[in-house]
Amino acid sequence: MGVVIPIEDRLPGKPSIEPLVELVQADMKRVNQLILSKAGSDVSMIPEVANHLISSGGKRLRPMLTLAASQMCGYSGEGHVVLATAVEFMHTATLLHDDVVDESDMRRGRPAARKLWGNQASVLVGDFLLGQAFRMMVDVGVMECLSILSDAAAIIAEGEVMQLAAAKNMNTSEADYLAVIRAKTAALFSAAAEVGPVLSQRPRDEQAALKTFGINLGFAFQLVDDALDYGGSSAALGKNVGDDFREGKITLPVLLAYGRGTEDDRAFWRRCLQDGAIGADDLGAAIGRLSRARAIEDTIERAAHYGGLAKDALGAFRDGPHKRALTEVVDFCIARVN
Amino acid sequence: MGVVIPIEDRLPGKPSIEPLVELVQADMKRVNQLILSKAGSDVSMIPEVANHLISSGGKRLRPMLTLAASQMCGYSGEGHVVLATAVEFMHTATLLHDDVVDESDMRRGRPAARKLWGNQASVLVGDFLLGQAFRMMVDVGVMECLSILSDAAAIIAEGEVMQLAAAKNMNTSEADYLAVIRAKTAALFSAAAEVGPVLSQRPRDEQAALKTFGINLGFAFQLVDDALDYGGSSAALGKNVGDDFREGKITLPVLLAYGRGTEDDRAFWRRCLQDGAIGADDLGAAIGRLSRARAIEDTIERAAHYGGLAKDALGAFRDGPHKRALTEVVDFCIARVN
Repeated sequence: MGVVIPIEDRLPGKPSIEPLVELVQADMKRVNQLILSKAGSDVSMIPEVANHLISSGGKRLRPMLTLAASQMCGYSGEGHVVLATAVEFMHTATLLHDDVVDESDMRRGRPAARKLWGNQASVLVGDFLLGQAFRMMVDVGVMECLSILSDAAAIIAEGEVMQLAAAKNMNTSEADYLAVIRAKTAALFSAAAEVGPVLSQRPRDEQAALKTFGINLGFAFQLVDDALDYGGSSAALGKNVGDDFREGKITLPVLLAYGRGTEDDRAFWRRCLQDGAIGADDLGAAIGRLSRARAIEDTIERAAHYGGLAKDALGAFRDGPHKRALTEVVDFCIARVN
Repeated sequence: MGVVIPIEDRLPGKPSIEPLVELVQADMKRVNQLILSKAGSDVSMIPEVANHLISSGGKRLRPMLTLAASQMCGYSGEGHVVLATAVEFMHTATLLHDDVVDESDMRRGRPAARKLWGNQASVLVGDFLLGQAFRMMVDVGVMECLSILSDAAAIIAEGEVMQLAAAKNMNTSEADYLAVIRAKTAALFSAAAEVGPVLSQRPRDEQAALKTFGINLGFAFQLVDDALDYGGSSAALGKNVGDDFREGKITLPVLLAYGRGTEDDRAFWRRCLQDGAIGADDLGAAIGRLSRARAIEDTIERAAHYGGLAKDALGAFRDGPHKRALTEVVDFCIARVN
């Protein structure tokens, strides 16, 4: 008699975002429709600028967190689609303003909106999307969700200013750096996940669990992003490797290499990041110095640490496809770097 | 026997903002305290930038509208102070972003924040103040006020983009221009006044009346501002006369002069505003052409028309010090130009 041997339908090993994508697919289709409709305006420059960025193929990780968290909490209404769209608009507004602040030329492998329509349009369309995000939150009408998301909006901006103030300053500590990424990245991941149980009127412990999940996933995501800025390939990252270096951003890889380096290393980092005196070969030299200090590996090791905290936070939930997909997406975010 | 003759304690004729200032003085003191506290942050650049603009002596007309409307509606809570602060933060955020968009060097007679801290800080601190404004609205916890103010936030941004798209375009119609100022200026005046009766749970007709009052006061205010940009003195206006001219902004005085002008006039306006080819004597020449077309007088005449609508809207309210002060402030806004 033959024995049925289960065939693994996905290759083992490489973690994937696909299980999450499949779970939220139907809701995400409605998010995408709402994005197009809420980015619409009789003022044609608004949908032009907004759609340039929105259609450029970001992963939409943040709205997927809202959808998956809501589904995992058994939510059955429409509010999660609206809040997921609001979260994506908050993120898009931040990107538009970031490009102006960083004077970026590229975003997601395409020219930044500010290069095509000017800084003015990027600032104002960002403001419009933020206004639309708040309108959508008001439409949902759950005051605690408004509170969580408006807190995030103020904290994100505070984190961006903190980063601006810390730029070109080699005296930044690892604690300062973590405070910046907690505010500029982890706050929105956290809010995106936390509104799911709030919408679903689930107990406080599930809300706290998804909030913790989001914060730690945000830390892991940003640390990997910062490592990718020195290690990924331009095509994979969708923006130019070395952006942070050229902008004088003090990220963890740099802080580790600086802290562990010789006097010569320190002089190099000060010249490049503090004084902005960067020559043609300096990005290559920077990557070499980061490698000798094991700075990229240890940045990723720290990302994995936060990833572990994120996965543990899901212990509050019973096993099921959503918990498994959210767990895998943590590993996926970290594995981006390989 | 002597007869007591009442002595007029203010000079007749010149309308004043003082009666309004006096009525809201006690509440305004608390608004000012809340402004300082909510513009505070451990990130020192935030209060520095915010306070530079906040302390530069704007009239705080918008928050005064919220306070006076609430008082006139008999409101007895604390929410009006918080919403008035939120309104002022929305306005301040807009000014910070406007300066970046317009590349302004001066604001309220002082160097614009962007000249002192850079465009980046102006964009991000504006975002922070907007986030804080939403947090304060959430603190008040009245969903309809959130709805009115978040609508205004999106509409203001839409109006600013509309203005950007219309810049340097002499085919702008008077209707286009009115749509811009309705969105960029009148929407916030309107929202600032409308939240008063909503907070106070007054009937719909009082809400509609104060909304109409705010819209029309906003129109009058902006029309006078646009006239002042060609007619006021630099000291009185607190910014450089001719800013709109140099930025290629198509405002009503220009539209009137263009529409009424000769071929030579039209060629002049196209060269200056559309092509941006402005010589040293051209601002003076522009003022001369506006004068010959009676464009400034008629802009003010239109402002007075909207002012009349604003004053009539107050017919829904019984006579009293608040109604009188709000009526006088309409005349004050228009008389700024003399």
